[in-house]
Amino acid sequence: MEDKRTYASPESYAMNGGKGPYSYAQNSIYQREAAEAAKEKINKAIADHFDIKTLSASLNSVCVADLGCSTGPNTFISVQNIIEAIKLQYISTGVHTEIPEFMVFFNDHVSNDFNTLFKSFPPNKQYIAAGVPGSFHGRLFPKESLHFIHSSFALQWLSKAPIEVMDEGSPAWNKGRIFYTNAQKEVVEAYATQFAKDIDSFLFARAQELVVGGLLALFIPAIPDVMSNSDTFIGTELDLLGSCLMDMAKVGLGSEAKVDAFNLPTYVTTPKELNALIERNQHFNFERMEILNNKSKCLTLCNPSMRSLFLRSAFEGVLKKHFGNDIMDELFNRYTEKVAESSFFLNTEADKSIVLFVLLKRNNY
Amino acid sequence: MEDKRTYASPESYAMNGGKGPYSYAQNSIYQREAAEAAKEKINKAIADHFDIKTLSASLNSVCVADLGCSTGPNTFISVQNIIEAIKLQYISTGVHTEIPEFMVFFNDHVSNDFNTLFKSFPPNKQYIAAGVPGSFHGRLFPKESLHFIHSSFALQWLSKAPIEVMDEGSPAWNKGRIFYTNAQKEVVEAYATQFAKDIDSFLFARAQELVVGGLLALFIPAIPDVMSNSDTFIGTELDLLGSCLMDMAKVGLGSEAKVDAFNLPTYVTTPKELNALIERNQHFNFERMEILNNKSKCLTLCNPSMRSLFLRSAFEGVLKKHFGNDIMDELFNRYTEKVAESSFFLNTEADKSIVLFVLLKRNNY
Repeated sequence: MEDKRTYASPESYAMNGGKGPYSYAQNSIYQREAAEAAKEKINKAIADHFDIKTLSASLNSVCVADLGCSTGPNTFISVQNIIEAIKLQYISTGVHTEIPEFMVFFNDHVSNDFNTLFKSFPPNKQYIAAGVPGSFHGRLFPKESLHFIHSSFALQWLSKAPIEVMDEGSPAWNKGRIFYTNAQKEVVEAYATQFAKDIDSFLFARAQELVVGGLLALFIPAIPDVMSNSDTFIGTELDLLGSCLMDMAKVGLGSEAKVDAFNLPTYVTTPKELNALIERNQHFNFERMEILNNKSKCLTLCNPSMRSLFLRSAFEGVLKKHFGNDIMDELFNRYTEKVAESSFFLNTEADKSIVLFVLLKRNNY
Repeated sequence: MEDKRTYASPESYAMNGGKGPYSYAQNSIYQREAAEAAKEKINKAIADHFDIKTLSASLNSVCVADLGCSTGPNTFISVQNIIEAIKLQYISTGVHTEIPEFMVFFNDHVSNDFNTLFKSFPPNKQYIAAGVPGSFHGRLFPKESLHFIHSSFALQWLSKAPIEVMDEGSPAWNKGRIFYTNAQKEVVEAYATQFAKDIDSFLFARAQELVVGGLLALFIPAIPDVMSNSDTFIGTELDLLGSCLMDMAKVGLGSEAKVDAFNLPTYVTTPKELNALIERNQHFNFERMEILNNKSKCLTLCNPSMRSLFLRSAFEGVLKKHFGNDIMDELFNRYTEKVAESSFFLNTEADKSIVLFVLLKRNNY
């Protein structure tokens, strides 16, 4: 009866820590605005689907998790909103005289800067807080221990880049690029296959962790079904970033082989693709998939320096790990110049990217 | 029905982080040996008092907490031992076909280096892990959420030094000292009063967090009832450390007023005193208080440099906060010299300090 279950973490990439100019904390305005736009979605999701009567049987406390929390402050805004909405639900249904305690689990990779996260907790937070390090592609919590799981702008991260795209012998070899924008179809397919695997394992793990009736609320960057990655700012940006690395290799800063050996572990899905992936999981009722109304997203990021800072705060960790710290300033300087020279970013309408809101409820299956 | 409960943390002092020469991780051999000596106590406590039949009614997973975990590795040794003992209990009682999952909460102050802790997790740990930042003098976990709480070498830390000892107008003013060793009786009493308050609030919080039948296992440094603080190495050391600060003030490195305005927030109890404090709490059955057999404790620490490193790893955080970083090297160099010059530390028998093992079980009260 030896117990061999382990909870190890795979390779991890976290957003930049601390509070400096390249930190994620200082460069996540885009996500914060989306989170604020998301408030309404969450409120309605909880009002319509957080069934206190079903859930309260097992309740000493309401347990909430935010997956991919980074270092704040967005995670605190989201969590506060979730808690207020659940409290309102308790008050409005009137089934309990006392509101239970709240426990919030903040999750991100082991390499996330939890020290900064913990020091940034709101001074009068009305919940008990814990940090849970580890990859959300695997199990993070005990069975049936959570009532509400939230994840915002995190599921676009793959557990790893698909290995074929770095394999010279594969038809999916992505030579001269670090991302699948404008790449041949085999590269795009390899990325899509990896994303499908990752969504499967994500949903499988969450199904175990949620109590029956528990909710899973996801905000995921996406592109409309008929569009391609090059129709978005982020897709174009990551393609440009790859071209900067190739330019640098050509003048002896790094090598082309080094660029070929690297691809970014991130993917932008479509509503149709994500819909199909969710529907093949039987543990959830598919309550809702909606496009988030997020008009303000570009206004704050259309300045080339700001776009560069944003990209750096999100991707520097994974880039540094492969290319080393020394070329980061040069890389992002070159990148800022390319963004400034491009006309694509002048018109915010050119960015066709969207944000999907997905609401799932753990069923009895 | 507005909910105004908050979970804020008071001022905090953590052990030195990282893995450098002054880190707690590199200088906690004394505690580690005690923890290994403690293994037998824990095994017997769980075998005799962890009642699977009572506890399992509410069990999806077994929830364990280590309070004052610092950055490892001792916490991992303790936790692993607790889990193995509980698993053995499941196997030997045979009431369940399946061993439940384990969730371990690692707690320490917000200023603790959780990043290092998380990166040091054993590679094949058989439990789900979370970090919980905050002071154990207040609430840390939801009501009735834990089955086993462990705290080793942490309860000697007070929530704060008693304010009277820094008050020139008080009979308990501890002029020229930073600790109560060799101080007048009012100072000792002020420290004892603070310790009593802190134990009360500690036990009150733990009683809320444990399920009925849950265990609280504590290892606490102490001195025998008939001895005084000057009969221990640590008591003498902290007195010497204070005298170094006064010496430095006299040659212009700092000021006497600055020394007078500071006292160390730590206290060494006696079996009799702790016994009385525990007995006035009605929420626990007092299962056991024993003196830990820990013969090896001095052998590894009798070298003056090692004693100095040990003291520095534990107390530098709180000293730096008051006296600044600049004088730390000078302070601990002077301190190492004083230890080397003293004959008190030559004979390990001179150290009368002991370690108390206390086992409490949450009752129905």
